Amino acid sequence: MASAKTVPVSPLAPTHRPDLPAIAGVGLATAQAGIRYSARTDVLYVALAEGTQAAGVFTRSRCPSAPVDWCREALKSEGARALVVNSGNANAFTGARGRDAVALTAAIAGRAADCAPQAVFIASTGVIGEPLDATKFEGVLADCAGRVDGGSAAWSAAAEAIMTTDTFPKLATRQARIDGTVVTLNGIAKGAGMIAPDMATMLSFAFTDAALPQAVLQDLLSAGTAKSFNCVTVDGDTSTSDTLMLFATGAAGNAAVTDAADPRLADFKAQLDDLLVELAQLVAKDGEGARKFVTVRVEGATDDTSAHRIAMSIANSPLVKTAVAGEDANWGRVVMAVGKAGEPADRDRLGIWFGDVRVAHAGARDPDYSEAAASAVMRESDIVIRVELGLGTGTARVWTCDLTHDYIAINGDYRS
Amino acid sequence: MASAKTVPVSPLAPTHRPDLPAIAGVGLATAQAGIRYSARTDVLYVALAEGTQAAGVFTRSRCPSAPVDWCREALKSEGARALVVNSGNANAFTGARGRDAVALTAAIAGRAADCAPQAVFIASTGVIGEPLDATKFEGVLADCAGRVDGGSAAWSAAAEAIMTTDTFPKLATRQARIDGTVVTLNGIAKGAGMIAPDMATMLSFAFTDAALPQAVLQDLLSAGTAKSFNCVTVDGDTSTSDTLMLFATGAAGNAAVTDAADPRLADFKAQLDDLLVELAQLVAKDGEGARKFVTVRVEGATDDTSAHRIAMSIANSPLVKTAVAGEDANWGRVVMAVGKAGEPADRDRLGIWFGDVRVAHAGARDPDYSEAAASAVMRESDIVIRVELGLGTGTARVWTCDLTHDYIAINGDYRS
Repeated sequence: MASAKTVPVSPLAPTHRPDLPAIAGVGLATAQAGIRYSARTDVLYVALAEGTQAAGVFTRSRCPSAPVDWCREALKSEGARALVVNSGNANAFTGARGRDAVALTAAIAGRAADCAPQAVFIASTGVIGEPLDATKFEGVLADCAGRVDGGSAAWSAAAEAIMTTDTFPKLATRQARIDGTVVTLNGIAKGAGMIAPDMATMLSFAFTDAALPQAVLQDLLSAGTAKSFNCVTVDGDTSTSDTLMLFATGAAGNAAVTDAADPRLADFKAQLDDLLVELAQLVAKDGEGARKFVTVRVEGATDDTSAHRIAMSIANSPLVKTAVAGEDANWGRVVMAVGKAGEPADRDRLGIWFGDVRVAHAGARDPDYSEAAASAVMRESDIVIRVELGLGTGTARVWTCDLTHDYIAINGDYRS
Repeated sequence: MASAKTVPVSPLAPTHRPDLPAIAGVGLATAQAGIRYSARTDVLYVALAEGTQAAGVFTRSRCPSAPVDWCREALKSEGARALVVNSGNANAFTGARGRDAVALTAAIAGRAADCAPQAVFIASTGVIGEPLDATKFEGVLADCAGRVDGGSAAWSAAAEAIMTTDTFPKLATRQARIDGTVVTLNGIAKGAGMIAPDMATMLSFAFTDAALPQAVLQDLLSAGTAKSFNCVTVDGDTSTSDTLMLFATGAAGNAAVTDAADPRLADFKAQLDDLLVELAQLVAKDGEGARKFVTVRVEGATDDTSAHRIAMSIANSPLVKTAVAGEDANWGRVVMAVGKAGEPADRDRLGIWFGDVRVAHAGARDPDYSEAAASAVMRESDIVIRVELGLGTGTARVWTCDLTHDYIAINGDYRS
């Protein structure tokens, strides 16, 4: 059995771990099922009150994991009573055995939660292609169900149990008002490698006590994802297991709302978006080997979609990311990445900034450019690269991290 | 002035540097113009006999370099009399000054070669965004024109002068028959970083004494590129300067051929394709930091285009490439890369091989899979990854290298 790697905590980790408040109708417990890791928790069990609604956004991989298939199917029938997440094994590309393992997990959790298997949601993260022995959940999940807790320590333990090569747990919380009723939103995430557009985290789960129907939840989650997790990339690789789910217990007893566009949801929507952005940024800040957090802003593109593609081309370029790692204000590589995106761009109108330092203007080096000022920007741990295309009003903002020796070290020897 | 980095020669470099024969109508000379490097040649001048025809394939970047713009324009008028290549400065994203520098270079070379500027072709490689001082070519090119040579030492020197972070010069030669007449093909290339699909070398130049009209040359070069340089990737980044040109002096005096599909060109086409494949493979073998040469074969896709996209997704995946660097037969990452390509794939039909070892079959780990046998394959310096999709008859073959610490080291500190 492998030990979890001991990698130093990312220098971009928040200095303070937030205390998450309890959410009525959500109880959490973690355990050591011995899936792959020793001497650490590797299972999260979440009990959800009767009446809980669920929504999900999943990987666009053409080869999704067995748990992703399961969740997509389970969302077709309303209601969620339990969430089971394990780390250490992704149960991906495991064929018929993978489907059996998911079904067995749901059956075990259903007995623990006293619900139908279809009300159980499952996510797995870790190595791909190794059979997952779901019999290890036998007893473990029932034990979890008997000791669930909603306090801040339980949230913290939950965020830790789902980590793989993450160097710090990721948690965030918000409050919102729906027609006068205060509701709470909590979220946890795990990321690290294989983070890419079109679902940019391995796993993230958000919970609220708001009372919202499934269709509304799904609309809100899909819209929020487009501005958060779909705007973060570590290495351009897309996991087979990417899963983002939102569960709403309804315990807050707010007024019934049946349309995601209802103005009474404006604050909830804003807070949900904000929560998702915070979690997505935490994923980038814990990108494997990350030493610098990079925000790429693109303005003046022909439209937002074009701006997003250009921003992702910059954020995914190994040459841009190694330049950031080397604290080199190498704007030539930014030009290269703009050019390779294949989107409308006029070389002679490009402007490029590192932080507040304009390094390129009208298709050439800015005559007032100061190498010293640009270098000072690059030495910061939080760097903004801004590109002005001068063609239209399309904008985009994405987040990434630098590409360092540690990325190679972590991924060149992951399985051993 | 920066010194060229002293990086150890790639372990994938050929043990033998080929002796290239003379090609009637082609004379070469190199010089030290002091563009950026000290104590090494940085200019190649090639004199081409009157009547020489040219063809070119260039970067698809939306922000091409000034020399690329120049060559595209120059190809509109027939005839080539000189080629000037400099290393150290790409003259890319240099605005109006970049266009002026190209025009001045062409004027200086035109005087040296006694030809119109439009008969001069220009390529530049090196740092982006720095103005190129073309006055440094004054005198240098005339001197070169006075001492051109066609012997094997001159070809070797030519391949060396165009290197940037390359660790070895890249040369190849072939002979072909056109309707009974023997013709020769020589080629040189430089690559290293910023190598990607849709033109996968920084610079490559091929020369032949065959007599072929421009339109035929262009058809042959475009077709050959699709199967060679467009099938190689190092880091997925696309240079602003990618240039592949083919020059035909006509000195061999073969029978006139006016159609690329003429059966009398079958051997020439085969030999040209083969030359381009060899040069493209040399580029992958000298990928920045490369320790292993990787061939990715995809079979059973719905069509060839789909197969090519899946192969490129595998070849560009940082997680696949770091696994190869770590000698880890991590086929789960290959599944991930197949899934993220967005092309038709059925998880439960996938088969994956490392070398001759089938590691995955019908959507799961091969029951007969031997970790020891797969590990032995991964320890080789030449690795074939094969994916069978089981959907149709589409095939593709692409080449890449592993992603190592040295890639980070080379690119994290390139400009300093």
